[in-house]
Amino acid sequence: MLDLLPHIAELSRKTPSKILLVVLDGVGGLPQTPGGPTELAAARTPNLDALAQRSALGLLTPVHPGLAPGSGPGHLALFGYDPFTYQVGRGALSAIGIGAEFGPGDVAVRGNFATLAPDRTVQDRRAGRPSTEENRRVLQKLQARISEIDGVQIRLYTESEHRFVLVLSGENLGDRVQDTDPQRTGVPPLEALPESPEDAASAKTARVLNRFTQLAEEALKDEPQINGVLLRGASKRPAFPQMQEVYKLTPAAIASYPMYRGVAALVGMQPLEVRGEGDAPEEKLEALKAHWEAFDFFYLHFKKTDSTGEDGDFAAKVARIEAFDALLPELLALKPDVLAITGDHSTPAVLKAHSWHPVPLLLYGPYLRNDTATRFTEDEARKGSLGHLRGVELMPLLLAHAGKLQKYGA
Amino acid sequence: MLDLLPHIAELSRKTPSKILLVVLDGVGGLPQTPGGPTELAAARTPNLDALAQRSALGLLTPVHPGLAPGSGPGHLALFGYDPFTYQVGRGALSAIGIGAEFGPGDVAVRGNFATLAPDRTVQDRRAGRPSTEENRRVLQKLQARISEIDGVQIRLYTESEHRFVLVLSGENLGDRVQDTDPQRTGVPPLEALPESPEDAASAKTARVLNRFTQLAEEALKDEPQINGVLLRGASKRPAFPQMQEVYKLTPAAIASYPMYRGVAALVGMQPLEVRGEGDAPEEKLEALKAHWEAFDFFYLHFKKTDSTGEDGDFAAKVARIEAFDALLPELLALKPDVLAITGDHSTPAVLKAHSWHPVPLLLYGPYLRNDTATRFTEDEARKGSLGHLRGVELMPLLLAHAGKLQKYGA
Repeated sequence: MLDLLPHIAELSRKTPSKILLVVLDGVGGLPQTPGGPTELAAARTPNLDALAQRSALGLLTPVHPGLAPGSGPGHLALFGYDPFTYQVGRGALSAIGIGAEFGPGDVAVRGNFATLAPDRTVQDRRAGRPSTEENRRVLQKLQARISEIDGVQIRLYTESEHRFVLVLSGENLGDRVQDTDPQRTGVPPLEALPESPEDAASAKTARVLNRFTQLAEEALKDEPQINGVLLRGASKRPAFPQMQEVYKLTPAAIASYPMYRGVAALVGMQPLEVRGEGDAPEEKLEALKAHWEAFDFFYLHFKKTDSTGEDGDFAAKVARIEAFDALLPELLALKPDVLAITGDHSTPAVLKAHSWHPVPLLLYGPYLRNDTATRFTEDEARKGSLGHLRGVELMPLLLAHAGKLQKYGA
Repeated sequence: MLDLLPHIAELSRKTPSKILLVVLDGVGGLPQTPGGPTELAAARTPNLDALAQRSALGLLTPVHPGLAPGSGPGHLALFGYDPFTYQVGRGALSAIGIGAEFGPGDVAVRGNFATLAPDRTVQDRRAGRPSTEENRRVLQKLQARISEIDGVQIRLYTESEHRFVLVLSGENLGDRVQDTDPQRTGVPPLEALPESPEDAASAKTARVLNRFTQLAEEALKDEPQINGVLLRGASKRPAFPQMQEVYKLTPAAIASYPMYRGVAALVGMQPLEVRGEGDAPEEKLEALKAHWEAFDFFYLHFKKTDSTGEDGDFAAKVARIEAFDALLPELLALKPDVLAITGDHSTPAVLKAHSWHPVPLLLYGPYLRNDTATRFTEDEARKGSLGHLRGVELMPLLLAHAGKLQKYGA
């Protein structure tokens, strides 16, 4: 895949125009039964309909046809960072996802709680899927006993059920370390080893992880189920080119959940404070208004279109789309020069999961071709004047409509 | 980006069929006001309409969504050469653009006339944007005094205003030389240096450029405004694979302007003589007829759809489209086996500049799918049976319809 960012960095320029990118997480859907409406088609959305009639529509394949992207790759693509080029390690993505303290130089590792047999072979790689509460209880016990190994600070974070995140902070830590998770039962956990024996920094990380495994087993030896840990995906925080340099933007992120704030921060956005609980749509709008003058690019994220889809709750997803529709006039009142509304992937209620289907894209701003769209739906988007684009192609298009890209070549 | 040319070279074969590729420069447009017609939609084009009804249409994104390409990348893409892979240096593109004598081994450099302060710091990087006439006067003065440095021949060409082109001809000249243009005022011009000190050929070019700078300043010391030169983009003529080998074509270019003749020559086309002034549509047709038997691929370029767009003159662009429409029956009378009509980019009058919008593509020839298009417009093209293509994808399609491409793989 072509990495366009170096070219865009040559062509982009600072202008006063403002871009607002609204991501309705997982907004793309499917009919409940063949021929039926999707969630977007079933929703009553007078404001989106009116906007669609003044906008250009298209379909966006977030990452690649057939690939159902996670939030990380889906969002990186929307921000113009090809996720096949700009990779985030498993440990790093988890640390970002839970909002762990995770700075440059730190190494993040994904942990599984496991059940080990008396001979130390793995009996259950997920320790019977404990509750998240149980995870918290056990992790606190571990953190109380293990806070530092060989001068390296150990920070532990509950993710959910059997999953936790371990962050190592210290001097000269490498992240090229093999997993200790054997990926099967009946064998003991593997020893953490550096991928290359000459890599002293990764050898140090491996030593700390092996010591952590040993200390954890000692601390948990009286636990009935959770008596071992399996580690994988050691990775540092990636150092991606920043949107400030690549796009000459002053970008802000308005999102409630740590994952989205974290991914946005990776590409240089400033995550703004959002009050309120859960998806907090009104509070996000409040944050957008409060900071409107200070930034020229806003990523505004709404989560519940995805969560309701994952719950398989068609009606609840429709309700979340309608709730966004009700907010839309206040977004328009801010008069963004360019406004895009799309998703990071589809989450059809009928699938109860992220899917690979393209998402509809609405683009409102100057220099649009005529478009016959009457609503913001998958069907209308397919006929739209923007055609069919990839996720990574969105940012250059937004910059172009905002007058922020110079001509490529003479 | 995938470079398809090596694959195409394996699959292409010589046949008697003839392909005519008509490029209406910058033909893609925009409505003057939302909902209004584009230039193509506003034009009265009975011949194009009739042809569209027998053709297949599609939309072509010349280089990449959001990128407004210059003529160089736009045309290279139409010729099947991915412009991110087949790059032309700044100096080379300028030399080609003005029709400079610029052979293999020569090094072309872009020059700016500048105003230097008495302490030799740059006061104005564009010397107050002199007229092109003034540029010619000063450049003649320079050329009269500097025709050779250390056995290297110096040729100077006016581009426009403060811009000129310097071509060095001699033995063993390299082009990996840093710019002398400091890109800001208040500092002296930089010394030309080879990017790598071991590169003797580029070190030689750098020495010649430094000497040129010194001689130019001496020659211009009494000029009130133009008393210095800033140099950048040293580059040789790129050695691209030739259309003869890649496509097994015997290709000709019919274009009036040096830029288009030059880019066509880079990929192996023979630029044909065109009499007449300016865009010379009738004279181009005459050249096409005169050489119809001798070639099997013709690139036929019309410039004024772009120039009128850049002037912001919607009505004049419409008139140029209508003038092409009037010529069309004579093109069809030659009975090309495959005829494509498209643009190298859009130049909407409302933008007065190249834009990123896709261009309509009309394909006439055998083996077309059914298509409902009634006119050659952006709206009809969007619904066309060819779908939405990239510029570099056009040539394989033309070759296929002309029966010039064998099956790929067994």
